[in-house]
Amino acid sequence: MNRFQIEFLPLDLPLKRRFTISRGSRDEVNNVLVKIHCQGITGIGEAAPNHRYNETQESAMSFLDSFGSYETEYPFDISLLVEKMEKHGDGEFAAKAGLEMALYDWIGKKLNIPLYKLLQAPGRTGPITTYTFGIDKPEVMKEKVEEAGPYPLLKIKLGTEYDKEIIEAIRELTDKPILVDANEGWKTVDQALDMIRFLDKRNVFVIEQPMPAECTREMKEVRLKSTIPLMADESITGKESLQELSSQFHGINIKLMKTGAISTSLKIIHQARKAGLQVMVGCMIESVIADTASALVALWADYADVDGHLLLKENPMEGLEILPQGHIRLRDIPGLGLQ
Amino acid sequence: MNRFQIEFLPLDLPLKRRFTISRGSRDEVNNVLVKIHCQGITGIGEAAPNHRYNETQESAMSFLDSFGSYETEYPFDISLLVEKMEKHGDGEFAAKAGLEMALYDWIGKKLNIPLYKLLQAPGRTGPITTYTFGIDKPEVMKEKVEEAGPYPLLKIKLGTEYDKEIIEAIRELTDKPILVDANEGWKTVDQALDMIRFLDKRNVFVIEQPMPAECTREMKEVRLKSTIPLMADESITGKESLQELSSQFHGINIKLMKTGAISTSLKIIHQARKAGLQVMVGCMIESVIADTASALVALWADYADVDGHLLLKENPMEGLEILPQGHIRLRDIPGLGLQ
Repeated sequence: MNRFQIEFLPLDLPLKRRFTISRGSRDEVNNVLVKIHCQGITGIGEAAPNHRYNETQESAMSFLDSFGSYETEYPFDISLLVEKMEKHGDGEFAAKAGLEMALYDWIGKKLNIPLYKLLQAPGRTGPITTYTFGIDKPEVMKEKVEEAGPYPLLKIKLGTEYDKEIIEAIRELTDKPILVDANEGWKTVDQALDMIRFLDKRNVFVIEQPMPAECTREMKEVRLKSTIPLMADESITGKESLQELSSQFHGINIKLMKTGAISTSLKIIHQARKAGLQVMVGCMIESVIADTASALVALWADYADVDGHLLLKENPMEGLEILPQGHIRLRDIPGLGLQ
Repeated sequence: MNRFQIEFLPLDLPLKRRFTISRGSRDEVNNVLVKIHCQGITGIGEAAPNHRYNETQESAMSFLDSFGSYETEYPFDISLLVEKMEKHGDGEFAAKAGLEMALYDWIGKKLNIPLYKLLQAPGRTGPITTYTFGIDKPEVMKEKVEEAGPYPLLKIKLGTEYDKEIIEAIRELTDKPILVDANEGWKTVDQALDMIRFLDKRNVFVIEQPMPAECTREMKEVRLKSTIPLMADESITGKESLQELSSQFHGINIKLMKTGAISTSLKIIHQARKAGLQVMVGCMIESVIADTASALVALWADYADVDGHLLLKENPMEGLEILPQGHIRLRDIPGLGLQ
């Protein structure tokens, strides 16, 4: 029997800049560092609780505290931990993801193998990651475009009353391809289609969540008419089938902090592929710890948005690397690839 | 340092019935049983050498003999074995697949985990497997249809001068959906399209390799006009890109004995999905050992044809199960699932 001791600590991460999306602004994110200890080896993970789903640093730590330690005869069967966490309580996907990630890191270290190899990822280099801008006044965007210098793909958060002005301001500064995240910001079919026509002329290659999740009927019409691939984000709740989503979207944005596990994410990717959906892997505002786990999953994806750690003043460790052309790459060291 | 001792033995497998395809007939197949021993644990595999690629039981055993033993500091990193085998010699994909399969079985047993769990397969139940008929005179087909009683999907080998008569004879006996394997048997675009029109009216759900592999130009035309999904088999040599294949076919048939490894097969499946191709996993005439490894890979597939072991008089072990509705299922025991 193997007894894993679980340790967790607040991980408060100041941002380089105030970050604004259509739901609000923040200067700091309050995540949780998770460590799992057994046989002299420590696995590391991170929970990035999501306010939209009523998760906070406190609720995540409370979940981990009540979960206690983890005993198992089969430490390499990660599904046993996932099942035990599911039984322990609903929700708290960030805490669950942080703990599963830590056990996976432990497994890789114990077996002396990088996880991308253990899981037979297609390689250790993945898609080009986008570099995300929060919403800001057009004049502030200029500075941000300069900061994004080394990254070839931009991700812009829209859903404001001056979406077109933001894009026009950026297009005066750079012609880099843009992924637009509307964060449910467009409220009617006409508004969504008008924006898509506008964005299609301005080198936008993907649009994430154009309309509110409840607009399923409207999204079917928008999808049929859209000339740009549309990715589901808030529309993914885990209750709907991927077949249903494929009538509203061309692909799905998978986030570890929403699926609650690397292992679950890989299964969702498989199902999405079978349903003919494209796959994007996104992140929360999180440190390089969780972003490295997200990058692991993104090795199977078409699009990667794992830049949370780039928005922080500093990171607690080193993990995924971003190559000169913008591709993500995992380190060739045991476990997740953290050091 | 871990030293794996490699053992190999002829595995001669008499068939229930003479088996005929457009390239010839056989009453017995001559495969190789592969065992790998280390730390008191034995991993088991099987090589099913393919005459089409100049592989025989002798050449496979000769490859394994000259490969010798396997020493590694990283026994769980299967890519190191795959690389070492590649360096050791060209071809001999069956021998390579047999040895990689044996090491994977060892890894699962060593870690006390079924491989479908270690590799995060979507589950342990996969697609419905087809049940294959060799080419035979129409009167013999009646007996075969009766033998296929429990299996809901049939696979028929065509490419003869009396293809239509064979299908008509079967359709007088059963309306089960049929997967047709033409084994490169149709020589012109007109012949292929005529057969597709004929088969589309007779509940044929997939056609494998309608024309010779060298007919790339012809296949592009056939693919555009085909109302039935077309799978590549002989057209896959490993040299062409999946993008190229996707202009000739709707999907690819992946066989362990051609890719040379479970790990390689999983990577090809990922690439095929990204290229928008459907995935079928096939087999050679092989025992339940290799078929169980093929079934593991088929957990990620749309179509499975892993019935080689059903064509044998007897099998050396127990492995994959076929559920009452015809779905393949792996056993929930450590390793490949052999006992």
